[in-house]
Amino acid sequence: MFVAINYIECREDYRDRFEELFRSRAGAIDKMPGFVRMQVLRPIKGDTPYLVVSEWDSEKSFQDWTKSPAFGDGHFRGFADLKAAKERGEEPPMKSQFRVYEVITR
Amino acid sequence: MFVAINYIECREDYRDRFEELFRSRAGAIDKMPGFVRMQVLRPIKGDTPYLVVSEWDSEKSFQDWTKSPAFGDGHFRGFADLKAAKERGEEPPMKSQFRVYEVITR
Repeated sequence: MFVAINYIECREDYRDRFEELFRSRAGAIDKMPGFVRMQVLRPIKGDTPYLVVSEWDSEKSFQDWTKSPAFGDGHFRGFADLKAAKERGEEPPMKSQFRVYEVITR
Repeated sequence: MFVAINYIECREDYRDRFEELFRSRAGAIDKMPGFVRMQVLRPIKGDTPYLVVSEWDSEKSFQDWTKSPAFGDGHFRGFADLKAAKERGEEPPMKSQFRVYEVITR
């Protein structure tokens, strides 16, 4: 079992929009081979990042998803927000970093 | 739904022992009211911390666990390792930090 976590720092004024993007997601990732489940985690205290956690049967399934049309489709609105902010000369509304993990035990 | 993540920085020479502690855990946490599941995640690349992820039906269930005898029992061997290192005047073999999250969507 394999887990990818996208650590996403959100600008304060972008948090509602960020959460809305996930609440209204089309769910293309759910149909990818090897997908197990995902969760979006909001930090209860402090300014730690949001975590977008996806679980897969293997690292290969995750990597295949990142190269698939579903990846671009799933991130289309977020990527458009980033592009628009850049065109307005603003700071990006969010910054993300993927880290990957192996499940060693339950 | 509520998620607690314990971010654990392990000294290189303590990693095998750390993993062994979880592989041989007694599972007292699994019987706590409101417990949903747990996973131990080993970073595949770099020196990011291990993640011990536990899911609960509410923050209260998690807080009740941290105050229960099961919490002390479950951490007994790790706490003993920390104490022994301190008595030998060594750096602690691991450092941990809990962060807590609300599941906003799947």
